[in-house]
Amino acid sequence: MSHLDDILKSRRDTRHFTHDKVPDEVIEKALRAGHWAPSVGLTDATRYFLIKSEEVKTAIKDLFLEYNKKAASLTDNPEQKELYNSLKLEAIEEAPIGLIIAYDRSVLNQFTIGTIGSNEAVKFSSVCAAQNIWLSLTEQGFGMGWVSILNYYQFKKILDLPENIEPLGYFCIGKPATNYNNQPMLQQLHWRQKSETPDCKEITTLHLKNTSESSSHSTSEKPEEKNFDILLQEKIDSKTKPLGALGTLETLAFQIASVFGTLNPKIINPNIVVFAADHGIANHGVSAYPQDVTRQMVSNFLDGGAAINVFCKQNDITLSIVNSGVNYDFPTNTKLINAKIGNGTQSFLHAPAMSESELELCFEKGKSIVTTIAKTNCNCIGFGEMGIGNTATASVLMSLLTGFSIEECTGKGTGVSDEKLIQKQNILKKAIENYSGQAELKQQLAYFGGFEIIQMAGGMLSAFENNMLILVDGFICTTAFLITYKMNPKIKQNAIFCHCSAEKAHQKLLHYLDAKPVLDLDLRLGEGTGCAIAFPVLKSAEVFLNEMASFESAGVSKK
Amino acid sequence: MSHLDDILKSRRDTRHFTHDKVPDEVIEKALRAGHWAPSVGLTDATRYFLIKSEEVKTAIKDLFLEYNKKAASLTDNPEQKELYNSLKLEAIEEAPIGLIIAYDRSVLNQFTIGTIGSNEAVKFSSVCAAQNIWLSLTEQGFGMGWVSILNYYQFKKILDLPENIEPLGYFCIGKPATNYNNQPMLQQLHWRQKSETPDCKEITTLHLKNTSESSSHSTSEKPEEKNFDILLQEKIDSKTKPLGALGTLETLAFQIASVFGTLNPKIINPNIVVFAADHGIANHGVSAYPQDVTRQMVSNFLDGGAAINVFCKQNDITLSIVNSGVNYDFPTNTKLINAKIGNGTQSFLHAPAMSESELELCFEKGKSIVTTIAKTNCNCIGFGEMGIGNTATASVLMSLLTGFSIEECTGKGTGVSDEKLIQKQNILKKAIENYSGQAELKQQLAYFGGFEIIQMAGGMLSAFENNMLILVDGFICTTAFLITYKMNPKIKQNAIFCHCSAEKAHQKLLHYLDAKPVLDLDLRLGEGTGCAIAFPVLKSAEVFLNEMASFESAGVSKK
Repeated sequence: MSHLDDILKSRRDTRHFTHDKVPDEVIEKALRAGHWAPSVGLTDATRYFLIKSEEVKTAIKDLFLEYNKKAASLTDNPEQKELYNSLKLEAIEEAPIGLIIAYDRSVLNQFTIGTIGSNEAVKFSSVCAAQNIWLSLTEQGFGMGWVSILNYYQFKKILDLPENIEPLGYFCIGKPATNYNNQPMLQQLHWRQKSETPDCKEITTLHLKNTSESSSHSTSEKPEEKNFDILLQEKIDSKTKPLGALGTLETLAFQIASVFGTLNPKIINPNIVVFAADHGIANHGVSAYPQDVTRQMVSNFLDGGAAINVFCKQNDITLSIVNSGVNYDFPTNTKLINAKIGNGTQSFLHAPAMSESELELCFEKGKSIVTTIAKTNCNCIGFGEMGIGNTATASVLMSLLTGFSIEECTGKGTGVSDEKLIQKQNILKKAIENYSGQAELKQQLAYFGGFEIIQMAGGMLSAFENNMLILVDGFICTTAFLITYKMNPKIKQNAIFCHCSAEKAHQKLLHYLDAKPVLDLDLRLGEGTGCAIAFPVLKSAEVFLNEMASFESAGVSKK
Repeated sequence: MSHLDDILKSRRDTRHFTHDKVPDEVIEKALRAGHWAPSVGLTDATRYFLIKSEEVKTAIKDLFLEYNKKAASLTDNPEQKELYNSLKLEAIEEAPIGLIIAYDRSVLNQFTIGTIGSNEAVKFSSVCAAQNIWLSLTEQGFGMGWVSILNYYQFKKILDLPENIEPLGYFCIGKPATNYNNQPMLQQLHWRQKSETPDCKEITTLHLKNTSESSSHSTSEKPEEKNFDILLQEKIDSKTKPLGALGTLETLAFQIASVFGTLNPKIINPNIVVFAADHGIANHGVSAYPQDVTRQMVSNFLDGGAAINVFCKQNDITLSIVNSGVNYDFPTNTKLINAKIGNGTQSFLHAPAMSESELELCFEKGKSIVTTIAKTNCNCIGFGEMGIGNTATASVLMSLLTGFSIEECTGKGTGVSDEKLIQKQNILKKAIENYSGQAELKQQLAYFGGFEIIQMAGGMLSAFENNMLILVDGFICTTAFLITYKMNPKIKQNAIFCHCSAEKAHQKLLHYLDAKPVLDLDLRLGEGTGCAIAFPVLKSAEVFLNEMASFESAGVSKK
């Protein structure tokens, strides 16, 4: 076979192989073809791993079987499930050669041409290499099958692949046992029909932007301020308990009633919103976890397995998950609220994390999400976040907005080592030194901000406008609050600081805000977990105010 | 050109084009080549958009310029920046044809073969199509350049691409104006050298997993102690959260599981028992309230109007009220549990509060009440009290049992004035001086003790015997715990100190017991209210241990 079109057309995702050996020269020639593939910014990040060992193949096959079972359970109907189960989707054990095509994402630790819009360009180069290899094998009379039904986490673990090596899949290579009648196997088996021709449209005009969204001011009437305060305190003091004996609960009851503007406040449809996004700064080793964990945790939220899920379920709180800018493409039909600004921010070490228009968009999207929630009659909203690297962002913002040194604002996040902490501080210090912009809030936010942090701030502003209780979680969430506080100090009236985090900078920040947290449980998880765990305490404040007897009604002697 | 290797080798990421037109047939053939690319699960998700309009091209060029400037500012040093700025990285306006290769991620809304491990397979299929198109254009004597330096958000916006369409980039197509000497342009310009050969290693062995999953060991019997502790800690650490990030909740979960002897502990039928009694010492003006308030509050408990009622109702806790010795004759038909020893104790200023046989009776009655509750399958019991004057009793007992001075052990109770506090301290000091008995526990308890305090102590001993969680409330309740602790220090394993009271002696006592309270809300009400308010936090500990996903089950990377 020599004509390109013939090779392209006859290349098949192969799942049936003969027992014929694959000569070394064939593999060498194919890998050379892969090496001729494009490489963004000449990063040369593609890595290959060959597998011939039966033991290794068997272990990989087991991984496939596990996930294939899971996949079968996801099919849309019983017929589809039956057909799915009849499909042969791999030849891991039969194919004489196993190949892993992977990319080394540590190349992103240096400046890389072509990755500013999206660092996916690195993995795309490796995919091009995979396609070249496929074509070369086809030309040489061999076949390849791409197995992607794998738990990649386990896959990397059992093969002991380094953290920074990301496999595209497992590729089975051998002599094809069938040509599938020159069509995709899935078509041959009537799984689906491939379209006859490519889907191509011409774009002839530009789309003009038209924005300007305004949020409604829904203020409910509140009795005359001073009178109201006196009546409220009287009501609290009339309850059958010594004056002030319910301590913080009394303060909370006073606040809740004041925010709702009624002596009989009721928390309705509480909601915790978790904003998730990635941070370019994470590429500089400021976190104990790889960036991909943001995406994994969002999936965990959607699957109901994370801490915030179980605490919301425990306390009857609705949970909303927002994609503020995770470096991943989620399917569109998930329960995820889409407010994605981009695939994570840029690293602020040398350049702005986002543009000023992106900053505005963050505020707008955060506001619009909370406005929508307010329309569900919710009057109590908790804010949480997920984003590998976001304590770094929060530390810098806190330092800039409070004037504390970066050392005072930097903690261990989710758990970096002492050594890494110093490295983190040095990177952040350098980033601040590199900042040549003005000491102007919006400019600083755009330069250092995280998508989820700014969206939270936007959301809090909207919650304030809608007379909602604002539940503030840990360090990062409090930093978002700090932003809103700088914009409008009155917002503090609505804020309940749910807990004091184990992150040392959080104590300092709470102190700066003169805020007394409800709980002090050494939490440092984020996700809004502090809000969810503290929520029953707020409910206790509400129920004592509404349901306890007064001295008068119970016939108890007042001192 | 017809040999595949020649095509692969000469394919270039092209940035220099002649003004030659690109015939439609060339594009058609190239897109057909793209259409022959693999398509995971036959999703057919690749979409093409052609651009010929100068206006559209100019707008895209502007987007490129904006991000390219941003990229230049990210370079690692000035020389690199200069070199970077000299590079020609696109030909958006010159190239006669612009092509957008994109994928439609809405295909993921239906079941899609091959995407369970990662849905990236969909975009990878489109990348393979891009590579096919590149090769086809090369074979036809044309070139293509992949521009990825773009703000994709804006890009989609100005082209009005639907939300679910994700572009891989903008591709410039035309007749190449140079062949870059058959090497990548970036290499020719000495940006970087591409490696000579592909990087390939063989994997010959498996990396063995050294951990067995702990969650699978869900035996109701308690495994061998040490092993159990390890398994339990492993289970806690396997949850999708940084190690230790749930702080006190993790300690609580460990304790709850240990007390119940299972890795899957469940709190069942929680109960709070409020012991009420009067104190002869109240006649000496040690309280802010008249003695009759004990009786009134018991009625309030029975009527459901007290703080403990509303908090128990809020948190689904059964409430039991015990008459341990209130100075009043209650009707017999109430829900009150009758364990009355007498109409309050005698004043201990000059004589024993109770006889030694009354003391024994208190222990017995307290034990029997809790044993009865344990038979309702309750495994978590909170202790509360009501008794005008009982902080005075507690202060004396604390002083005798810990050795702290009476001043250190005396607070304002439910709210006496400063003057009255000194008077209270003087009376208690005198009472201790008047005591001529031995420093023997039972004798001291009989002399100073309150009926409800000793009954609580008896109840706690029974709770320990029945493997129940013991929820300790405020100052008086902790003094009752102190008594049991002196009798059997092991009881602390079962005790959860629910809050730190505003009564200053309580902090001292908690410190003496090396106990870390769950809440610190300035409560000083008694009645077991601290237990009831803290209860949801214990539930949070239980639910995270039982319901959260593990790293393994959720496929989240552990650091």
